[in-house]
Amino acid sequence: MIIAKKITETREKIASAKQLGKAVVLIPTMGFLHEGHQSMVKIARNQDPNHKKIYIVMSIFVNPLQFGPNEDYEKYPRDLARDSGLAEQAGVDLLFAPSVAEMYPDGKSLTAVQVSQITEVLCGASRQGHFQGVATVVTKLFNIIQPDEAYFGLKDYQQVAVIKQMTKDLNSPVKIVAFPTVRESDGLAKSSRNAYLSSEDRRQAPVLFRSLQEAEARIIEGETCTEVVREEIRQRISSESNGKIDYVEIRKADNLAAVDSIDCPVVIALAVRFGTTRLIDNIVVEV
Amino acid sequence: MIIAKKITETREKIASAKQLGKAVVLIPTMGFLHEGHQSMVKIARNQDPNHKKIYIVMSIFVNPLQFGPNEDYEKYPRDLARDSGLAEQAGVDLLFAPSVAEMYPDGKSLTAVQVSQITEVLCGASRQGHFQGVATVVTKLFNIIQPDEAYFGLKDYQQVAVIKQMTKDLNSPVKIVAFPTVRESDGLAKSSRNAYLSSEDRRQAPVLFRSLQEAEARIIEGETCTEVVREEIRQRISSESNGKIDYVEIRKADNLAAVDSIDCPVVIALAVRFGTTRLIDNIVVEV
Repeated sequence: MIIAKKITETREKIASAKQLGKAVVLIPTMGFLHEGHQSMVKIARNQDPNHKKIYIVMSIFVNPLQFGPNEDYEKYPRDLARDSGLAEQAGVDLLFAPSVAEMYPDGKSLTAVQVSQITEVLCGASRQGHFQGVATVVTKLFNIIQPDEAYFGLKDYQQVAVIKQMTKDLNSPVKIVAFPTVRESDGLAKSSRNAYLSSEDRRQAPVLFRSLQEAEARIIEGETCTEVVREEIRQRISSESNGKIDYVEIRKADNLAAVDSIDCPVVIALAVRFGTTRLIDNIVVEV
Repeated sequence: MIIAKKITETREKIASAKQLGKAVVLIPTMGFLHEGHQSMVKIARNQDPNHKKIYIVMSIFVNPLQFGPNEDYEKYPRDLARDSGLAEQAGVDLLFAPSVAEMYPDGKSLTAVQVSQITEVLCGASRQGHFQGVATVVTKLFNIIQPDEAYFGLKDYQQVAVIKQMTKDLNSPVKIVAFPTVRESDGLAKSSRNAYLSSEDRRQAPVLFRSLQEAEARIIEGETCTEVVREEIRQRISSESNGKIDYVEIRKADNLAAVDSIDCPVVIALAVRFGTTRLIDNIVVEV
């Protein structure tokens, strides 16, 4: 596995791989890898265990643009030595791990990619500028790597929706592939931020997915009122944990539009704080 | 020459050209071609008269996103039959002439590319949203065509600056090449909008370039005060024409920052209305 910190070197290696006829898969991450990231690598690698047809690029970059002033940019966990071991083991061909100065040589970007509407709800409503930072850095990564496909995890459901919208609107030649959330045995969605949790918060946090599963069951049983379902989720989280709810919302699965009555595929998404750690999770319910 | 109205067909033809090892040059236009456009095609074609190494793509698209509500989107001149003759004659390989529905299938784009600072002055100050429309459509064209190089005319000096900034900030793999303004024999910058001018306005319009040349001469003689030079340009335009000045500005040539004293390369840029027709021109002065 190659570890490249420079854009120029990365472009050269990828051009060589393309010259050999390989398809390029990009898996963008902020590092501190967990099984959610590794499973995406393995799915790509299993299609081409001999490294003949698919060139797997993983990027590791904690993007300052997508963190608000009071968020966890500084303390976000970083461990390139550990990550590069896990990436290589999973089957990555090139690990692109640029510095902030390499990505933003002028200290900032005068250019921003903005997606409207679907960024104004859920996490976009509580994290001002977050999705502009995401869309901008993903556009940069797409331009640097020029992948055929890019893989994203559905734990960040809204992020996937934003990237798909952006890719469609800007005619990006990259195919976006979304992967199911990987979970701990007790249901907690794998996340780099789980490392922040106190042992007590870690014990309580599975209530998030339990409440989503319960809500799914209620909808399948016939409940169609979003307010009823949301309230049950809120109640369960409040009664079974110390988590502070940022939002619990039920929206159309395809475009995140509001729904009053559940009569189409919906995503139930939530964000809850345990101490200073903000966890998100979601479930898609097909009706 | 191929005329393609669909993105899919365009991508296929370009992929075939790339497979043959050809470099792809994109010349984005809004059509109603004049010698300014043609000269860029000819410069590319002259490097490869036998169509072996360079695949020249010209796009013709009057982009609604870059026109304000009171601007000339509806009446902007369009003549694809005439344009395709001129494009073929100049040496274009593929003319990409999409409909608005092909470029904006949802009627609009939720995604926008925004460049700050350098879009807030000159034409950006009087044409709200113009450069966001330009940056967005150019990003789309770059993603559709995936050119190695894109050619732009320096008559739209600020546009070139915006595209260069965007390309740099977003790590776009496209090399931006800027070409000098092509002029009529009396100095008027070639522009599709010149077709709107009354014969009297057409007679007066060369005052724009005369005033820029005079200003250049004054600076070379030693004048360093932007206010003095600007005032002389305004006086000349007002006394020698009925043109209504939108702006006359002197800014740093590289980043369009304000300058009080002319002690570095500057661009003198102006926009003047003749009737309902808004003409722009500029000159770069190296000191």
